[in-house]
Amino acid sequence: MRIVVDAFGSDNCPVPDVAGAVEAAREWGDEIVLVGPEKRIRQELAKYETAGLPISVVHAPDVLTMEHHARDVRRMTESSVRVGMQLVKEGAADAFVSAGNTIAVLSSAIFDLRRIRGIRRPALAVFYPIAVGPVLLLDVGATADPRPEYVVQFAQMGAVYVEKVMGITNPRVGLLANGEEDEKGTLILRDIHRLLAEEEGLNFVGNVEPKEISRGAADLVVTDGFTGNIMLKTTETVASFIPRFLKEKLGEGPLAKAALVLLLPALVVALPGLLLLAPNLRRIAKRLDYAEYGGALLFGVNGIVIVGHGRSNAKAIKNAIRQAREAVAGEVLETIKAGLAK
Amino acid sequence: MRIVVDAFGSDNCPVPDVAGAVEAAREWGDEIVLVGPEKRIRQELAKYETAGLPISVVHAPDVLTMEHHARDVRRMTESSVRVGMQLVKEGAADAFVSAGNTIAVLSSAIFDLRRIRGIRRPALAVFYPIAVGPVLLLDVGATADPRPEYVVQFAQMGAVYVEKVMGITNPRVGLLANGEEDEKGTLILRDIHRLLAEEEGLNFVGNVEPKEISRGAADLVVTDGFTGNIMLKTTETVASFIPRFLKEKLGEGPLAKAALVLLLPALVVALPGLLLLAPNLRRIAKRLDYAEYGGALLFGVNGIVIVGHGRSNAKAIKNAIRQAREAVAGEVLETIKAGLAK
Repeated sequence: MRIVVDAFGSDNCPVPDVAGAVEAAREWGDEIVLVGPEKRIRQELAKYETAGLPISVVHAPDVLTMEHHARDVRRMTESSVRVGMQLVKEGAADAFVSAGNTIAVLSSAIFDLRRIRGIRRPALAVFYPIAVGPVLLLDVGATADPRPEYVVQFAQMGAVYVEKVMGITNPRVGLLANGEEDEKGTLILRDIHRLLAEEEGLNFVGNVEPKEISRGAADLVVTDGFTGNIMLKTTETVASFIPRFLKEKLGEGPLAKAALVLLLPALVVALPGLLLLAPNLRRIAKRLDYAEYGGALLFGVNGIVIVGHGRSNAKAIKNAIRQAREAVAGEVLETIKAGLAK
Repeated sequence: MRIVVDAFGSDNCPVPDVAGAVEAAREWGDEIVLVGPEKRIRQELAKYETAGLPISVVHAPDVLTMEHHARDVRRMTESSVRVGMQLVKEGAADAFVSAGNTIAVLSSAIFDLRRIRGIRRPALAVFYPIAVGPVLLLDVGATADPRPEYVVQFAQMGAVYVEKVMGITNPRVGLLANGEEDEKGTLILRDIHRLLAEEEGLNFVGNVEPKEISRGAADLVVTDGFTGNIMLKTTETVASFIPRFLKEKLGEGPLAKAALVLLLPALVVALPGLLLLAPNLRRIAKRLDYAEYGGALLFGVNGIVIVGHGRSNAKAIKNAIRQAREAVAGEVLETIKAGLAK
């Protein structure tokens, strides 16, 4: 298997991108192709012990940044995203991983790889982080205004992935809504509900509210790309606000510093208890760490594409590469195509 | 001022509803009219020292529960919600507060009070809890499918409220979106954006993402009732998931109990530091406690209506009554009407 990794994707590129790629090559032994300005990639690679690792570099002089728009993608043929996507298109690689500008990766995927025949619109999927078990949420930002029938296709593609890669047979499909009753939500939501209920081969469990998603009431949840994106961004905002707010407000005022000094001995006394709790603490931290989840999966184009979070660290990049290899190994693309052909 | 309070609204009614009403009457001295099954209200009232307090009871034999639908509201004329709304309609009271079924309160408000002349659709507004300062978010569930011009009216009504009640002159109006760029979001979002930008008398600051809302980038944020409701429910889900998840996972396994016993001495040692931090801890707890915010304000009908959270405790009911009295004192309804007449 050969996976192309955009070395100039993440906000702190190329450091985490190259580090994650090296770790992935070390752990799984898949061929990794780093794409981007070659000289800078080689400088970064030189920091690691890479002798014998199946890592190669393909030169792409340009980089698409957050400042670039969809319209810039077409002309920037020498950018790391476009060059990486071409490698997948030509069959020189099996998957593409980038933590770069989502709009740019999306535009390039549609432009270079083209949509799968029969699929009307692509969808981006993530594992929803605030849930007791794995719940795939899609679309989180590829198609803001889908027609109801497009959302049915999102459900079909997501179901293939959950079944093939997560090993969940006959996965439960939920529709994101603001109430369980069929009468809730927008007019288009009711149309989507009706189509999902009619669709044979889908285990549709009906409307699901955010709290039900977090309780694991479905294995995958479909929505339009606008609502899904707002839900994901709200989740990130709330999850990061509370600790930040605590830190800020706890340290306010003249007594706060004295209080923190007084708390230090308590920390020492607490150590034996904390050590016993360490395995649980580690499990919790792992469960709530978005880097564990890798990136978003792009469904609906002729290739496996993973879009990482801009704030990805090396672990997040490595896990995005893991998602790519699992999708390739699970023959997700072939299964989606075969399912559509039926 | 006379405020009608639905004694049979909240999930644990009539306990918190009556307790909150008694506390409000005690603190502010406004006349409170409790509405619902009279005998049960009097039984509940008997638990408190209410001699001399301006509390009266109006009998309504029926109660609209979560099981009732919008279509049930019309025929249940003797329900606490319908009877309370009628008191406002007849001018026998200035505002209505209920922590009951939102759909039922909404339907009754539109049916009994009617929409303000010129206002096309009502909107429910809340103060978004995960923000550094007060940010009014609307609509969070009254109008799922607004036309763009309705959302402009939401902004106008919200701006009056923020200006009159919060004392923020020329409040900054944001539009909930998944990116700052005008090109982001749905087609209807772009239409709303254009109309808001054109509207004179609105201090429109453009698209705002969830993280910007939490940073206080706007004083009020408008959206459609579906997206607003999903955002609010996602916020509640994430904010309640993390502590619940910690508690559950920390206590798992055979060593957890021993660890918790070992942690007790640390708590004792930490006491002096915690005491010094107490004012900060109290402020933080207050800031993150939804009960501090009261309920949702219903804009667009001929009367002041506050819809409390179903899980309201006495403090939340009391704060919903505070919101009602502030809206009455601020002449919010009259100002909205005068603004529309211009």
